[in-house]
Amino acid sequence: MPPQALVLFSGGQDSTTCLAQALADYPGQVEAVGFNYGQLHHIELDQAAFLAQKAGVPFHVVDLRFLSAITSNALMDASIKIESLPGQLPSTFVEGRNVFFLSTAAVIAKQKGIRFLYTGVCETDYSGYPDCRENFIRSIEHTLSLAMDYPFTVVTPLMRLTKAETVVFMQKLGKLDWYAHTHTCYKGMRPACGQCPACVLRLKGFREAGIADPLAYMG
Amino acid sequence: MPPQALVLFSGGQDSTTCLAQALADYPGQVEAVGFNYGQLHHIELDQAAFLAQKAGVPFHVVDLRFLSAITSNALMDASIKIESLPGQLPSTFVEGRNVFFLSTAAVIAKQKGIRFLYTGVCETDYSGYPDCRENFIRSIEHTLSLAMDYPFTVVTPLMRLTKAETVVFMQKLGKLDWYAHTHTCYKGMRPACGQCPACVLRLKGFREAGIADPLAYMG
Repeated sequence: MPPQALVLFSGGQDSTTCLAQALADYPGQVEAVGFNYGQLHHIELDQAAFLAQKAGVPFHVVDLRFLSAITSNALMDASIKIESLPGQLPSTFVEGRNVFFLSTAAVIAKQKGIRFLYTGVCETDYSGYPDCRENFIRSIEHTLSLAMDYPFTVVTPLMRLTKAETVVFMQKLGKLDWYAHTHTCYKGMRPACGQCPACVLRLKGFREAGIADPLAYMG
Repeated sequence: MPPQALVLFSGGQDSTTCLAQALADYPGQVEAVGFNYGQLHHIELDQAAFLAQKAGVPFHVVDLRFLSAITSNALMDASIKIESLPGQLPSTFVEGRNVFFLSTAAVIAKQKGIRFLYTGVCETDYSGYPDCRENFIRSIEHTLSLAMDYPFTVVTPLMRLTKAETVVFMQKLGKLDWYAHTHTCYKGMRPACGQCPACVLRLKGFREAGIADPLAYMG
């Protein structure tokens, strides 16, 4: 059966939940795409590859490290050549990065005859990133459909959910065990450190949901 | 004076006309950005750099060769790793590439406090590319403004002009001589071949405008 859905997949908790939802919607007709944009820990993409294989979903990784180049200080020098330095962190967070993620996914999706793009963006805890909000998602859906003359739909199952609600949502999808393989820890540790802000936020979500986190934590 | 306008600049006839317009609108407050997306002839970007220097405009080149990777046949294999091969042509034209060009320009522009993005897209001879049409431009302007919470304006001086009208437009801007340094020839030749479809179309525009092309042609 031809693929129907392409999941923007980072190997984190939210996009793994989206993968489970996409498979519930279109069993056996899901693919996933990950982005290498110079993130701190490559372990994220390793976990994504592992989870995709576990879920039986083809997984593509696209090199978007140019994103770190366009926020480097080199720009301010008006130099002619802007190069991306592998292994180096972006000097600033790339604003609007969901524009690039969704646009790249759209180019891939259209070639495969896929209309539905799944992303784990969430307005509830958007932390000031305007490209996680519903109005942005509807706008880029329209823009990409016009740009490629193709009827894309951007599906955002988590848009209105809190972290705790996302955990409950995943339980209902019957895939809570997948969370054991997701990556959250800022320090890139497995077992996870349990102490960094990302681990603390994750654990709070599970606590509020009254559900045990299947992820392994240190000591 | 702080920069006000960022021109999407390929070194071709249309974007060179946009550069002249931007400088008329904001003298001394213009920068330009070019994109290396694996185009056939590097001479385009060389000419762009030459013209930018002649115009006294800082010029940045961003490496977007990942675009050729996302249209390669590797994708169809569901392989995990998608690599961009330097020097290799995209196997297919990248649909919606103006999404990537404008989004990249927007990220750079915001960092510099620039609101106005100039692009030479033209609905008149859009040749079936939906991402050259006015409705797309207005939509992505809105999307990028939402994504980065910043009031971008996408300026398209050539949107309604024919090739002949563009030549007349440039004459009025007093920069016809810049056309001697633009690149059009598909064969990458300088002097231009005068025979390929791109050269033929260019020469037709000048003929209809009743203006001599300052570009050097063979024999």
